[in-house]
Amino acid sequence: MADYTFYTNPMSRGQIARWALHEVGADYAQSLVDWQHKSEQFITANPMGKVPTLVHHADGGDRIITEAAAICLYLAEMHPEAGLLPNDAEMADYFRWTFFAAGPVEQCITSRALKFEPTPEQEGMAGWGSFDRTMNTLDGFLTGRTWVCGERFTMADVYVGSSVDWGLTFGILPPRESFVAYAERVQARPAYKAAKAIDNDLIESMRK
Amino acid sequence: MADYTFYTNPMSRGQIARWALHEVGADYAQSLVDWQHKSEQFITANPMGKVPTLVHHADGGDRIITEAAAICLYLAEMHPEAGLLPNDAEMADYFRWTFFAAGPVEQCITSRALKFEPTPEQEGMAGWGSFDRTMNTLDGFLTGRTWVCGERFTMADVYVGSSVDWGLTFGILPPRESFVAYAERVQARPAYKAAKAIDNDLIESMRK
Repeated sequence: MADYTFYTNPMSRGQIARWALHEVGADYAQSLVDWQHKSEQFITANPMGKVPTLVHHADGGDRIITEAAAICLYLAEMHPEAGLLPNDAEMADYFRWTFFAAGPVEQCITSRALKFEPTPEQEGMAGWGSFDRTMNTLDGFLTGRTWVCGERFTMADVYVGSSVDWGLTFGILPPRESFVAYAERVQARPAYKAAKAIDNDLIESMRK
Repeated sequence: MADYTFYTNPMSRGQIARWALHEVGADYAQSLVDWQHKSEQFITANPMGKVPTLVHHADGGDRIITEAAAICLYLAEMHPEAGLLPNDAEMADYFRWTFFAAGPVEQCITSRALKFEPTPEQEGMAGWGSFDRTMNTLDGFLTGRTWVCGERFTMADVYVGSSVDWGLTFGILPPRESFVAYAERVQARPAYKAAKAIDNDLIESMRK
């Protein structure tokens, strides 16, 4: 039995988790989720009915992890030999920008995709303030920087990098220089390429 | 000089970070942010202009942490003696539910407060699916459970607990039995009480 059961769908945020699995070299078995017919086993693991959902068959019992960013950070902890955990000095950026991507950036992208924008009066209430404020903050951070924690790639880049990469691909993030350059660095990671190839093949075979 | 500079406003998500600071017994100096006149120093620290924003005056240089959940997890790491970090077996729940609160729950609360709800067709795109799906999942998780990681209080409870407590206070979360009981356990924490007293005093003095 593989160490992890990975519930996913190739056209989903599951791509983020697959990249993370490949970055740490995890031994996983994939279980494809059909949106129309979700299995009872899957719904029990994640009552949200959302992918990615990861089951870690650990000593002492199964552990379930949902939320793409949580899966990334969890895998970095379980596989310290992959060297993707932050050191003490990198920890502030590691957590700050992972939650920035999971919060404001995710809310920006979703609200724009769903055609909802907060009014100026609502910006105080909205954690992301406004689309432009979030984009400017992310742009300012990434400009002149290689990875989230500086010169070294960490697991935070799998999540933040996926957000930027996805946002550019779907035309929701503006193609600012710092975003495009960061996405190119992300796409050059061997684990990104390996994971992407699997998802692209699955998408291709589903179209046939 | 204190170890941390804490930019906050008593009527904001800053309450979450203050509770976390008190849970770890951090030495912090508070800097109140006036929404109408944000200082240049503050905007430099966080171009989003959002609180809480924390500056850790660490050996080797200042580190800036934003996003309430990131501040919580960072403080747990910097103060391991507080015993709020998860052990290996608790780590899946620790990350999963912190990101669940920072993602789906936050999006639920915000979208409802801003009077925006995804249509059934949009639920697949929205990370939180729907308000009810998120509430049912959280309810199912908290029912029969003391804290996020089981019987032991961890830093995840500061963030998840604040979300539930805040949502109930403002009437956005439905008063389900598991939510109310969890909020009561949260409110009984000495650090919660100490932090809340400071914010309540500040709110009171601002009204005079």
